[in-house]
Amino acid sequence: MLLPLGNIMIIGVLGPKGTYTEEAAKLWIEENSGNEGHIMEYCADIQDVFILLESEACDLGVVPLENSIEGSVGVTLDLLLEHDVNIIGEAVVIIEHCLLSRGKKEDIRIILSHPQGLGQCRQFLKDKFPAVELRSTGSTSHAAKLATEFEEMAAIASPETAGMYDLNIVMPNIQDRKHNHTRFVIITRSNVPESVKKYSDEQKQDGLYKTSIIVYLDHDRPGALYAILGEFARNDINLTRIESRPSKKVLGDYVFYIDFEGNINDTIIKHAMFNIKSNVSMLKILGSYPKFDSYCKSN
Amino acid sequence: MLLPLGNIMIIGVLGPKGTYTEEAAKLWIEENSGNEGHIMEYCADIQDVFILLESEACDLGVVPLENSIEGSVGVTLDLLLEHDVNIIGEAVVIIEHCLLSRGKKEDIRIILSHPQGLGQCRQFLKDKFPAVELRSTGSTSHAAKLATEFEEMAAIASPETAGMYDLNIVMPNIQDRKHNHTRFVIITRSNVPESVKKYSDEQKQDGLYKTSIIVYLDHDRPGALYAILGEFARNDINLTRIESRPSKKVLGDYVFYIDFEGNINDTIIKHAMFNIKSNVSMLKILGSYPKFDSYCKSN
Repeated sequence: MLLPLGNIMIIGVLGPKGTYTEEAAKLWIEENSGNEGHIMEYCADIQDVFILLESEACDLGVVPLENSIEGSVGVTLDLLLEHDVNIIGEAVVIIEHCLLSRGKKEDIRIILSHPQGLGQCRQFLKDKFPAVELRSTGSTSHAAKLATEFEEMAAIASPETAGMYDLNIVMPNIQDRKHNHTRFVIITRSNVPESVKKYSDEQKQDGLYKTSIIVYLDHDRPGALYAILGEFARNDINLTRIESRPSKKVLGDYVFYIDFEGNINDTIIKHAMFNIKSNVSMLKILGSYPKFDSYCKSN
Repeated sequence: MLLPLGNIMIIGVLGPKGTYTEEAAKLWIEENSGNEGHIMEYCADIQDVFILLESEACDLGVVPLENSIEGSVGVTLDLLLEHDVNIIGEAVVIIEHCLLSRGKKEDIRIILSHPQGLGQCRQFLKDKFPAVELRSTGSTSHAAKLATEFEEMAAIASPETAGMYDLNIVMPNIQDRKHNHTRFVIITRSNVPESVKKYSDEQKQDGLYKTSIIVYLDHDRPGALYAILGEFARNDINLTRIESRPSKKVLGDYVFYIDFEGNINDTIIKHAMFNIKSNVSMLKILGSYPKFDSYCKSN
C-alpha cells in the first residue's frame, strides 16, 4: 500500500498542540492503526481542517460535531454539506474544562476559549465572572497559549494544556454540567486516499455501524420529513440523531442531518436510501463507520 | 385593565440601545399595541431577559430564537425549557450587519460582536480579517459601544447603531449571505400579567396561528419521534420547524422543539396534543401566537 511519507499518516486537527480534537484523533488512531506512525497537522480553525484535506495536504481530518451540553457545532455541519468529504469514524472525548491562568483568580479580567468552551461554561462565567471580557479563539489550546501573555488573562481548556503552556489550574471542572462529552468525526476526501482506504474498507465486518446522511426535503410538501422517518421506522432502523440546520436560502427552510444504526452496504439500508432519495430534493451520504460504543466494548 | 405604570408596558430586551432585539420588540409592539406606551428595559444577555421577566420587573421579554444563516440560538432554546414562560408572539427582523469603527479598515485589530453576529460573518472575517482578535459580547450594540474606545476596535452591528454610538460604517452588508433574517419570540410569564393578557387572548380569532412545544421522548423507544410526527401528518398539521437540543443528561439524548401551524384552542390541535402527551416523557406547550407572515399581509 502506498502511504505518504512512508507509513506515516497526516492528520489535520485543531491546533495548537493540546486541543480536545487532537485527543479525539489519538483515541481513534490508537483503536484503528495501532502502532503505525502519524503526524498531526495543526489547523487554526475547523474550516482549515476541511481545506487542508481537500488540498491533499493531509490524509484525515478530525472535527467536533456535537457536545452534550452545548449541542451541535454548526460550522462543522455546514462544512460537511459544502465539502466533498466522507465520514469514516467517530470518537467521543470526555471534556473536563479548567480555568487556566498565570495569575490568581482575583486578577482575571479576560477569559478566552473556543465558542463551544465559553458556551459549555456559560452559567459558571455568569455566576463567578460576571464582569470579565470574553474572547473567542479558534480552539481551547489556542486560548491557553494566548493566556500565557498576561496574568489578567485566563483560558478555558483541558487540564493537560496547563502543563503544556505552563499555566496554573485556577479552577478545575468548571463546565455547567458534570458530565460533558464531545463527539468528533474522522473525515477524509470522498475519493478516499490509499493511505486511509483500509480503515473504511477492512472493518466492515463486525461490530455496530452508524451511517450519517444529509437530506434536503421538498419544501412544498408538508409531511415530507414524516415520510422519510417512516422509511426508518418501517425497517426498524434505529435513528440516533436528527438535527436541522438552516438551508441559508430563506428563514424557515432547513436541511436535516440524520444519523442511524446500520451500514450503507447492508441491503436494508441500501433499500431505505433508495426510497428516501426519490422523496427528497437532495440526499448526501456522508458515510458508514463503526459506532464509538463498539470501540469501548472491544477494549 | 390594570397596567403597571399607568398604561405603560415594560419590555425586557437585549441592551444597550440599538440591538436587533429592540427592533423586534418595536416591530411587534407596533403591530399589537398601537399607540400605547412602553418602556424598554435593557438586559446584558439573553438569560437576564428571562430573569427580569420571572422577577416581575418586566411584562414582556423579547429574545432571538433562530437565524437564517447561523441557525438556532441554543441558549434561548435551553432557557425556554428551564423557565416558566409562554410565547405570545414572534417577529422577524432583517439583519444587515456592518463593520463599525472609529478608525480605518487597515487599523482594525479587534472585532467585537454577539456570537451570532460573529457566526453570521464567519467567512467574511476569515477572508478579510484572518489575523484579528475576535471578542464575544452580550449583544451587537454592546459591541458597538465598546468599539468607541479605541480606533483599532470594530463592531459587527446594525447600521443604526453607527449613528447611536458615533461610529463609521467601515464596511456595509458583511454577512456571509445576502439574505439574513432573525426570528425573535415575545415571551411572558406563564401566569400571564394582566397588562399583556389581551395580547394572548383577544387575537385568537383571525389569521394564521403557530404553536410551539417542547417534547422529551421516551429514550428507550425507537420510533418515538416518528410516532409524534405521525400525529401531525395524520391530522394535516403543518410542521414549520423541528429542532433538537441536548437533554444535557448524556451525549446522544435530545429534547425536541417543534413549531407547527394551528392554535392550541383548535379542537384538532388539542386532540393531537392529548395523543402526543401519552407518548412522551415530557410535553411543554410554550404557547400559540399569530404567525409573523400574517402581520405582513395585514399591512
